[in-house]
Amino acid sequence: MRRNPERRQSLIDAAIEVLAREGARGLTFRAVDAEAAVPMGTASNYFASRDDLFTQVGGRIYERLLPDEATIARTREGVQDQARYAELMHELVDRVSAFDSGYLALLELRLESTRRPELRAVLTKRIREDIDTNIGNHTASGLPGDTTSVLLLYLTLNWLIVERLTLPDIFTEQEIRELVDAAVQRSLDVGADGQT
Amino acid sequence: MRRNPERRQSLIDAAIEVLAREGARGLTFRAVDAEAAVPMGTASNYFASRDDLFTQVGGRIYERLLPDEATIARTREGVQDQARYAELMHELVDRVSAFDSGYLALLELRLESTRRPELRAVLTKRIREDIDTNIGNHTASGLPGDTTSVLLLYLTLNWLIVERLTLPDIFTEQEIRELVDAAVQRSLDVGADGQT
Repeated sequence: MRRNPERRQSLIDAAIEVLAREGARGLTFRAVDAEAAVPMGTASNYFASRDDLFTQVGGRIYERLLPDEATIARTREGVQDQARYAELMHELVDRVSAFDSGYLALLELRLESTRRPELRAVLTKRIREDIDTNIGNHTASGLPGDTTSVLLLYLTLNWLIVERLTLPDIFTEQEIRELVDAAVQRSLDVGADGQT
Repeated sequence: MRRNPERRQSLIDAAIEVLAREGARGLTFRAVDAEAAVPMGTASNYFASRDDLFTQVGGRIYERLLPDEATIARTREGVQDQARYAELMHELVDRVSAFDSGYLALLELRLESTRRPELRAVLTKRIREDIDTNIGNHTASGLPGDTTSVLLLYLTLNWLIVERLTLPDIFTEQEIRELVDAAVQRSLDVGADGQT
């Protein structure tokens, strides 16, 4: 295996674009070489197998989807109320939607994981960790809501992003904004019986 | 074009299985013929193009995902309260999850629609109609909640089904039940300020 880390990363980034554009079946070493504009045969020197390539792509997408340190630090400033929570969720939806090839590639990986047990194990671990990190960050933040709020927002906003990226004419940008606001507000709520 | 409607339907049903198992790129006339166990060349007599096949698959999945008349009639019986709403949503999640190849094929179609404008137009129209039907049925039912409740449940439950079908170890069956109950309860809620 070749070990130039920058070259490896640029190959994985090329693989993300191929995956989003061509689908899982289109993700071949040859297509990655072409996308990265490197000599044919390069990718096969960096990845042991297509399985290995799929797995490394999964890890890299998460690296690129997560907020950087400065963004995380900023989320801890100011009053931690419902309006702040909604603002953070708008930023999240916009940040993830902006990396559209990454999000579409992640959907391709989820579908491919129904065919590749090893990939499924890696994605399950990575996504479960991500959910637990979200829950931990929320608890530490002082934002309103509980663990159920975090899980409901995780579910709701993921599908909202799927909708926006795959069938963008279903909801207008204005409707998306209103749905994010409503999702935050209602995720926090006490029940109709006055209990949480 | 051949016109035997039963043969056509069995080819489309075969295409759904191919799509779920092999992904969009694997959906060829040859694969459909093999899956349907018909002579090679049959599918090409029933569909004008792969575009046509993709489009017809989209329509058929919806036909099969929707509840039958008896199920719809049953949803209108009994007290239309929050517990009833939750029961209906559990039934919905279980019915859709049970047709797992259909739901996975629909995700493949969504991803493919980013590459095929015609398919995107057909899916957008079909899904927007489905959302509007859901809103209309909800309004007529007397169940608690409003249009926003219906939209939030649409988003939340779709991703819950994605999670269950693609990475089934993320949430346990018990967690899925609790999330459906919480999604219904909180989707209905009045705000923290006492306003809806």
